[in-house]
Amino acid sequence: MKILFSALGAAQAGFDCAERKGIGHPDTLADLIADTFSREYSRWCLKEFGVIPNHWVDKVTLVGAASHVAFGSFTIARPVQCHLIGKITEQVGDRPIPLMELFEQATLHVMAEALGGTSIWPHLLLFIASTSGTAVDHDARFYAPGGPEDLRKVLRSETVANDTVICTGSSGPGPAGRLAIWLEEHIRHIAPAQIGTDVKTLVVRQGDRYDVTAAVPVHPETVQSWREYADLIDAFRDRLKSDLAARCDAELHLNTKDRAERGYLAPFGTALGKGDCGVVGRGNRAYGVIEPLRPAGCEAPAGKTRSTTAGRSTALWLAAPHRRWRPRAAARPR
Amino acid sequence: MKILFSALGAAQAGFDCAERKGIGHPDTLADLIADTFSREYSRWCLKEFGVIPNHWVDKVTLVGAASHVAFGSFTIARPVQCHLIGKITEQVGDRPIPLMELFEQATLHVMAEALGGTSIWPHLLLFIASTSGTAVDHDARFYAPGGPEDLRKVLRSETVANDTVICTGSSGPGPAGRLAIWLEEHIRHIAPAQIGTDVKTLVVRQGDRYDVTAAVPVHPETVQSWREYADLIDAFRDRLKSDLAARCDAELHLNTKDRAERGYLAPFGTALGKGDCGVVGRGNRAYGVIEPLRPAGCEAPAGKTRSTTAGRSTALWLAAPHRRWRPRAAARPR
Repeated sequence: MKILFSALGAAQAGFDCAERKGIGHPDTLADLIADTFSREYSRWCLKEFGVIPNHWVDKVTLVGAASHVAFGSFTIARPVQCHLIGKITEQVGDRPIPLMELFEQATLHVMAEALGGTSIWPHLLLFIASTSGTAVDHDARFYAPGGPEDLRKVLRSETVANDTVICTGSSGPGPAGRLAIWLEEHIRHIAPAQIGTDVKTLVVRQGDRYDVTAAVPVHPETVQSWREYADLIDAFRDRLKSDLAARCDAELHLNTKDRAERGYLAPFGTALGKGDCGVVGRGNRAYGVIEPLRPAGCEAPAGKTRSTTAGRSTALWLAAPHRRWRPRAAARPR
Repeated sequence: MKILFSALGAAQAGFDCAERKGIGHPDTLADLIADTFSREYSRWCLKEFGVIPNHWVDKVTLVGAASHVAFGSFTIARPVQCHLIGKITEQVGDRPIPLMELFEQATLHVMAEALGGTSIWPHLLLFIASTSGTAVDHDARFYAPGGPEDLRKVLRSETVANDTVICTGSSGPGPAGRLAIWLEEHIRHIAPAQIGTDVKTLVVRQGDRYDVTAAVPVHPETVQSWREYADLIDAFRDRLKSDLAARCDAELHLNTKDRAERGYLAPFGTALGKGDCGVVGRGNRAYGVIEPLRPAGCEAPAGKTRSTTAGRSTALWLAAPHRRWRPRAAARPR
């Protein structure tokens, strides 16, 4: 066996860096919704048909709400749009799969769990764009099986791997990545109720020194003025500084865009409530953090058929020991 | 000055790999449309107002057509959906910016240039979701300026960098990346008219040996049977093998999913014509190829305001000597 070295380990390098998008970040929400939908779709079909039909919904797109945000209040001018996009088996034989019901359950569940409440629910519009058809690279029944046995036959015969896939990746976070993950989780656990979950943490390590930047959103209705907001952030900064100091040699910068009368307010505690958008594959790597200097995979694993997608399996296998947060299993669909 | 090493150069590593998505790949099309829209929007506004308003359209999403594809023909059951998504300044003072006209021009132009024809045009549906509003992290006139002078004032006062951005990247392709780019360009230049532009090339290098995989789509209406398709691909494989052999020690695999009566047919020469979807930031890195083992940026540069986005500027500055293909400048909007 020949082992070739083509990258330095993060801990061996003199310098590394990491960015963690919190569980309320729009890109994280998109990944979670795609994966929750895929899991519940697979579960429903396993129960009904005993087999998982082909589905690739790795293009979930969340279009942020257009809103007007002020200290003390906000209004939503246009709701959030949640799009489920991709090739989906819509029925097996003549039994339809309840796509919209499953998508709605996945979306509501993830939003409630990741944002810590349901106040965003009335501001969500859901859309499904299923693009499956027939072509000559697959059996015509690949997305339109005549029944469960038919689908099993197709899956047994379609053993050819996809044509251009390369599986690469890192097996877990390095020092900067571990600190970025720890800090986001810590913020989530100790934050007062005014602070939302669309937290971002950014860590740059040089030797044993950590330069740490974080941004935390505040629910607009919970602070009535710039003063009240600034006092909240100042107190939270002090708390985080002392918690970080107990852990490593770090300098902390919190909400660096703040200026007098300017702060980071976000409806529902996420920038999705103020126009930011989220897409599968633009957020954290499968092990929970972005480390741009380290080997990555080419794959956005969320939402791809779990039983057959090699790129997804590799990404999650590498990430398995390090995956940190997933929504609790959703209530079973009716 | 202190220089810290945290990655191996691609050429120094014993092993490296790369994937290039061709100009007709849905992810490439999304990047090109976002960037072309942003350029034409900026140009229009510079001419009208003398200043570029804030716009972030880095979430262009292309939903593939649902279609039925066979040797000799295809039918489109549901058209392609092209979504322009993001925070966009819609008017300056009471002068509206012709968003839909600019988006339509950008989309039609990129499709024609990248696919080498206009046959996809009747199958495109366009949507704009503008999510800009007001919040207390920016001047209220950030996306709704009262006039050009007002906008200039806002831009002069908003000199604060975004809160959590890290600029990283590689400055250009290594040996595997260079071969992947060369091969995709070479295929585009020598391919017969039956072959489309949604080409993928994949290169794995071990020392001086290159393992090369490529997939090329065939326009369904140009081959009447599996036999005709297979003859076309076989001849093309021979040609590519000899061209590669003249360049390096390489083994070539072409259209590896093909089996008797199964081939890679794609309407308009792109998988977008058969249900695949494209999103900004999921395709090639800014310098034209994905090298998953090498340092990357965190930024999807396409579609972000060119005058003010530091992450975009860094990515394109690193990529500048290596950018290979851009559509010719579009005709000026009326």
